[in-house]
Amino acid sequence: MGKDRLTAFSDGFFAIIITIMVLELRVPQGADWSALRAVAPSLVTYVLSFVYLAIYWNNHHHLLHTLTRVDGLILWANTHLLFLLSLVPAATAWLGNNFLASPPTALYGGTLLLPAIAYYLLQKAIIHRQGAHSILARALGRDIKGKISPLLYIAGIAIAFVSPWMSIAIYALVAVMWLIPDPRIERTLSDH
Amino acid sequence: MGKDRLTAFSDGFFAIIITIMVLELRVPQGADWSALRAVAPSLVTYVLSFVYLAIYWNNHHHLLHTLTRVDGLILWANTHLLFLLSLVPAATAWLGNNFLASPPTALYGGTLLLPAIAYYLLQKAIIHRQGAHSILARALGRDIKGKISPLLYIAGIAIAFVSPWMSIAIYALVAVMWLIPDPRIERTLSDH
Amino acid sequence: MGKDRLTAFSDGFFAIIITIMVLELRVPQGADWSALRAVAPSLVTYVLSFVYLAIYWNNHHHLLHTLTRVDGLILWANTHLLFLLSLVPAATAWLGNNFLASPPTALYGGTLLLPAIAYYLLQKAIIHRQGAHSILARALGRDIKGKISPLLYIAGIAIAFVSPWMSIAIYALVAVMWLIPDPRIERTLSDH
Amino acid sequence: MGKDRLTAFSDGFFAIIITIMVLELRVPQGADWSALRAVAPSLVTYVLSFVYLAIYWNNHHHLLHTLTRVDGLILWANTHLLFLLSLVPAATAWLGNNFLASPPTALYGGTLLLPAIAYYLLQKAIIHRQGAHSILARALGRDIKGKISPLLYIAGIAIAFVSPWMSIAIYALVAVMWLIPDPRIERTLSDH
Repeated sequence: MGKDRLTAFSDGFFAIIITIMVLELRVPQGADWSALRAVAPSLVTYVLSFVYLAIYWNNHHHLLHTLTRVDGLILWANTHLLFLLSLVPAATAWLGNNFLASPPTALYGGTLLLPAIAYYLLQKAIIHRQGAHSILARALGRDIKGKISPLLYIAGIAIAFVSPWMSIAIYALVAVMWLIPDPRIERTLSDH
Repeated sequence: MGKDRLTAFSDGFFAIIITIMVLELRVPQGADWSALRAVAPSLVTYVLSFVYLAIYWNNHHHLLHTLTRVDGLILWANTHLLFLLSLVPAATAWLGNNFLASPPTALYGGTLLLPAIAYYLLQKAIIHRQGAHSILARALGRDIKGKISPLLYIAGIAIAFVSPWMSIAIYALVAVMWLIPDPRIERTLSDH
Repeated sequence: MGKDRLTAFSDGFFAIIITIMVLELRVPQGADWSALRAVAPSLVTYVLSFVYLAIYWNNHHHLLHTLTRVDGLILWANTHLLFLLSLVPAATAWLGNNFLASPPTALYGGTLLLPAIAYYLLQKAIIHRQGAHSILARALGRDIKGKISPLLYIAGIAIAFVSPWMSIAIYALVAVMWLIPDPRIERTLSDH
Repeated sequence: MGKDRLTAFSDGFFAIIITIMVLELRVPQGADWSALRAVAPSLVTYVLSFVYLAIYWNNHHHLLHTLTRVDGLILWANTHLLFLLSLVPAATAWLGNNFLASPPTALYGGTLLLPAIAYYLLQKAIIHRQGAHSILARALGRDIKGKISPLLYIAGIAIAFVSPWMSIAIYALVAVMWLIPDPRIERTLSDH
């Protein structure tokens, strides 16, 4: 019951954050193709952020599957994650308006880094409540992707001051790395 | 379970995209009727896009009905469709601000064409998972409407550089063609 | 099943339209009270539209309760209603920006009149499908409020060209008239 | 059934209001860090309002748990609460644009005070319908937090004309006070 409402709220939140970014997608000023070209960077950042949020939604979906019970700790760990994800549209808009400038590129990396940490904490909170032998604990195993991603974000943030293109490439690389839904949880779940 | 959440997320997404377009609907500048007349093209494109998205929602509704199981492939085929549909409000706003200019009219056709292809791929993904003898495969049959529509969109895009009015008429024609909910799936479903 | 999805979609739609109006609510320009006073008309129209949409949501809630089966006719009658309601935020913004000017006041009345007609048609569609002896048909009885409201809206639209204040008063009067949830349906339902 | 729909609508409403504030979050003008610093107050007010709305959502969640039946009175008491909460984003935007100016700081306190009263009335409506011996009535007990908060808001509003920083501190203090989910209802519920 509580879990259903948490899921519904999170789903609504994801759907809204993703689509809020459409609103930030700049409408071309003027009726010709050059006006369209001027908003191309805004479209590139939109695509990247859309893929990121879709990945979070997808993995969050698998994560909540493993929940057996919702309490205050998990509720707030989840709200913390959603809060940090809600900063992504504004960072996307800033980067889209100032494509490849160092500060927006670095900040964008920061808004990818923070939810990654929050997601890690949410996993920890669920494992803390459900025990080291729970489905989730076994499914995650050593969680290599979860540990490498923050390092890559930090690298991307640092590199933004040298070569913003490289940062964007790193952020895109992490997205590709996560694009496959987490087979560990799916496999462990289907073993039951 | 997974299907319910996919459905709920898609519904939320449709509801939001449709209503985001209301936000793009221009509010008249000034208090007289001529100010209202100036936003009339914005209203026309809003109506057209609303009808399109309502048709997608409606047929998507029938499509998900035939799902028996959700996996990564279907999840991503669905996300791909929703992503492309999320571009419709921005294209609607561009066309509404520059009514009957060739580039926005052509681009608008493009944002109708891409989801049509994504929808086709989603159908393929479902049939791929559920077999050529599944309800959906039999319900679709030769899927003539699904094959004609992309051709009409491509025609509309090409004609936009000659006669944008004609393009809009073609886009409206395809909408009318789809307005009736897909009787094939309904019939095949009710046979069971 | 189909009914659940229709209900969920409609709920999402109502929630979004209502809150879209918050976005149209003008943020004061400047930090003093006179800046706040300048947006007061925007708040007044927001309150009126919020009450209207809350009434529609509430009565729509009772209406869908009486549904036994969803088909294409009812789906499109419902979509038609939601489309017309989606025009309310733009009309609210126009009136809020140009309070008591005749054209926005008249148009606002028009965006109240059209959904009232669409609601009537949705009722008719449901009764058509479920028979003159259905719960809804008996619950509505002579439906006096439903028949008087359009007349009052038309009066309000006409009077907007003479005394816009009077029009607003009439629109508010209709809202008050509907504020009580429809006891006819509730009573007839609880008889079962 | 009625309760489910009320819950779903309220959840959708909360999710939307919270994320509408992201839209009001100002995107920096310019590509350097000073542009980012200029929007910092906007971020501070966003965080405060996000925490407030998350607390309301959380406690509202517990409150609706205790509902056994929805009627007109509870429906309107709930709509009244949601309406007042819908004013928070606009007040947040005004304060974010004019940080520490007295009128926006005082008004912000007002938009915290009004939902607090509406929440109190919703509690009263539920207890009125379910009796003084209901779960909710016993769970609330003397409801000290609920009675102190409005007094603190009023203090914050008054102090805004002397020291706006102090007002913000008071508003933040009340948020901290409520951050823990209501253990009274949880405890009383788990006794059953």
